[in-house]
Amino acid sequence: MSNKNAKYSAKAAALHKIKSKSQKEISAEELSARIIAEDKSALSQAITLLESTNPDHKKVAADIIQQCLPHSGKSFRLGITGVPGVGKSTFIESFGNSLITKNHKVAVLAIDPSSQKTKGSILGDKTRMQTLISEKNVFIRPSPTSESLGGVARATKEAMILCEAAGYDFIIIETVGVGQSETEVHSMVDFFLLLMLSGAGDELQGIKRGIMEMADALVITKADGENEKPAKRAMAEYKGAIHLLPPAEHYFPVKATTCSAYENNGMDEIYSILEEFQNHTAANGYRDNHRKEQNVQWLKRHLKFSLLDLFYGDSKNVDRLKELESKVKSGELSPFKAVELLLS
Amino acid sequence: MSNKNAKYSAKAAALHKIKSKSQKEISAEELSARIIAEDKSALSQAITLLESTNPDHKKVAADIIQQCLPHSGKSFRLGITGVPGVGKSTFIESFGNSLITKNHKVAVLAIDPSSQKTKGSILGDKTRMQTLISEKNVFIRPSPTSESLGGVARATKEAMILCEAAGYDFIIIETVGVGQSETEVHSMVDFFLLLMLSGAGDELQGIKRGIMEMADALVITKADGENEKPAKRAMAEYKGAIHLLPPAEHYFPVKATTCSAYENNGMDEIYSILEEFQNHTAANGYRDNHRKEQNVQWLKRHLKFSLLDLFYGDSKNVDRLKELESKVKSGELSPFKAVELLLS
Repeated sequence: MSNKNAKYSAKAAALHKIKSKSQKEISAEELSARIIAEDKSALSQAITLLESTNPDHKKVAADIIQQCLPHSGKSFRLGITGVPGVGKSTFIESFGNSLITKNHKVAVLAIDPSSQKTKGSILGDKTRMQTLISEKNVFIRPSPTSESLGGVARATKEAMILCEAAGYDFIIIETVGVGQSETEVHSMVDFFLLLMLSGAGDELQGIKRGIMEMADALVITKADGENEKPAKRAMAEYKGAIHLLPPAEHYFPVKATTCSAYENNGMDEIYSILEEFQNHTAANGYRDNHRKEQNVQWLKRHLKFSLLDLFYGDSKNVDRLKELESKVKSGELSPFKAVELLLS
Repeated sequence: MSNKNAKYSAKAAALHKIKSKSQKEISAEELSARIIAEDKSALSQAITLLESTNPDHKKVAADIIQQCLPHSGKSFRLGITGVPGVGKSTFIESFGNSLITKNHKVAVLAIDPSSQKTKGSILGDKTRMQTLISEKNVFIRPSPTSESLGGVARATKEAMILCEAAGYDFIIIETVGVGQSETEVHSMVDFFLLLMLSGAGDELQGIKRGIMEMADALVITKADGENEKPAKRAMAEYKGAIHLLPPAEHYFPVKATTCSAYENNGMDEIYSILEEFQNHTAANGYRDNHRKEQNVQWLKRHLKFSLLDLFYGDSKNVDRLKELESKVKSGELSPFKAVELLLS
């Protein structure tokens, strides 16, 4: 699960590039070079540009992506989901620490849904993943998402590319909630891990079939203390249920296991599953094909946002929209007529 | 919670309109008239047009909305969410039946996420809400959503308008999952009900603050048998936690209660909460203001889809996209460059 040689020569070349440039203002080229030289603060800065709504920032960000793309793609991309309360943060903390001991550089891209009411971040508390955040080889980035784009921030895929260019060879994308958001994340990752609680009502009803179908492995969390037995039982039940599902495209049988982030148990087994998956899908060609398909989805996603940017980037459109908005608000005009007027 | 007089005169006028027209082909005008005359099959047909990707169908659908709009708005709009397994369907069945006995006409718009793998509906099984579906005054419509739009189908808001025009005075919008989707549904409903399980791990951690903030009431489900006690305990804990939240815009204190769909318990209490909410928000002006704000959100949502339709409606664009897609797939072109080429 690594590809260190290519990375280090890229780093040396990039460092050389930085030194040969003047320090006046940060250009896309310079920021890219620093990212490729594994500079964490440049990486943070570039992701901030990605998330900016300023059109100039967006342009710089697009250039950075373009320059980082050739240095990307060498990581294992892991998506993690589960209902609120399943213990995603504690799991990532425990699993992330075990990745560090295996010499991985780990980037965690967490989706941080903004509170609609207070307009602030909900999960942005500094107390999450405390031991992991202080590790040298770890980059944690919670991205606020105020628009409802299905559980991933608009720029998550792009941020992943930058992290890879910065030498992170293990990317974890954490989602909030369970539902539609997963399809979006599934279109970005190699492996999709579903965390589950035992004892949350009916074991098999708990997670609907569509989400089970997307998961490459199920992990029952909090398998410690008196919860260990129910967790093992739930695992056995899921193992039974998995056989009823149609085989996945990658023909890697879906695994079910348990873990305890509290006791740091089960992390090595999960790592083995991922390793086995990687070998399996590299051998049968699934991994490369899947990533190609994902690029097409990325294209469509980027196109959608670009079309919206084109409209909202024109101040005449925005002014006209404002005008019509007040008529829609007062009930004078239906949203349908308003859009007809706007686009005519 | 009703407004029968206005409805019945509209019905009579609409029926008259149908009879005075020839029966050659179904026009937007005719379908609208039949909807307003409370014809269920016309309502179904119109929603199918709404969900169609055919531009002609969309045009007819937009005209129908336009004609039904003046007859809409007279319902109570209830959004229901909760994690998978919380028992949303059984709750809606039990609550829906209690609404029928109170002389409501009930429309249920359920979000039915398509399976990404099998391309079929996940929840489209006919066994859901069996007793409710056979009621004369009930309309149940599961809308497939294959795109990830955040848990509501693209046309949910529009379908709601049509249901209202067809005389349904109580609309229930059911979402899947918990997460970003709620913000979308919240922008369509008067009241947002969060169903919760007791005993799903830490009671207060279970649902993250942002979702609690959106809820107008919390209902602990499955409060029957040996689960009754833990449910009541969870309710008490939530009641305590609610006080820590900032007051909602509508200044209606968030309520917490329990129910058992299995024993048909607690439904009247929930109805009372909704009634109290309606009186409270009608008196303080919140309801009307809120709906006006929602219209603006609807405008923006509709604008977004219309912009995408404009692009994809042009076959030249689609052909060019196909070309570039294969280059993106093979890695020859980055998604960023491809969009630049597409939009230049």
